[in-house]
Amino acid sequence: MLVHIMATASHPSLSEQLRRGDVLAGACPSRDILRHVTGRWAVLILIVLEDGTFRFSELRRRIDGVSERMLAQTLQNLEADGLVDRVAHAVVPPHVEYSLSPLGREAAGHVRRLADWVETRLPALVAARARHDAD
Amino acid sequence: MLVHIMATASHPSLSEQLRRGDVLAGACPSRDILRHVTGRWAVLILIVLEDGTFRFSELRRRIDGVSERMLAQTLQNLEADGLVDRVAHAVVPPHVEYSLSPLGREAAGHVRRLADWVETRLPALVAARARHDAD
Repeated sequence: MLVHIMATASHPSLSEQLRRGDVLAGACPSRDILRHVTGRWAVLILIVLEDGTFRFSELRRRIDGVSERMLAQTLQNLEADGLVDRVAHAVVPPHVEYSLSPLGREAAGHVRRLADWVETRLPALVAARARHDAD
Repeated sequence: MLVHIMATASHPSLSEQLRRGDVLAGACPSRDILRHVTGRWAVLILIVLEDGTFRFSELRRRIDGVSERMLAQTLQNLEADGLVDRVAHAVVPPHVEYSLSPLGREAAGHVRRLADWVETRLPALVAARARHDAD
């Protein structure tokens, strides 16, 4: 499979660019995927799904503030990127479950570590903001 | 300093919530900060600044596709969060340099590892998207 990647002056050799993506190149598909996994709700969905398999309503309950529409749309995007598996059970009433794919589990680990950092460094971050606002 | 954090049913003890942020709680300031560091251009700025100190024009050249306005706005936000240091040199003509603060360096490391993952896993991610689109 060929991955088309734009060359940028600031970046390494051509072979290096063909072996992997380059998020600094505007036309590289890695930039779009990075945007998907760092999306407002995608980040939170990935984090919650690290804990297991959930139905739509359970996801919505766990992610404070997400609308039905945004949750559905973001799940669809994550499914299209191969990060989330969607399984529809043929029961009455029918129900649908969401979980991370192996690829999604890798992404979720990185996103979770970033969120963990923000959560644990929150006092320093809030203090920095307060100092700035006081200037 | 007091950090105000909303309680959510799905989350641990009260002391755990007071010790650190909780990005799943809508009113927790950690969620806003997570949005800042995962913003479309913030991610790329943090990655570039891991390589050193740069002037505005150099940053703009390295981040393919960013507008002057978005770069300026995002740098201001990162500065307000205490992640980016801005130094104005009193020379003629005056010039301004941007670099990561110690806190910004921590954030950039996590963001860089997520971007690295996307870049190196790009073939699998593009293949997953192609399988989905073919369905």
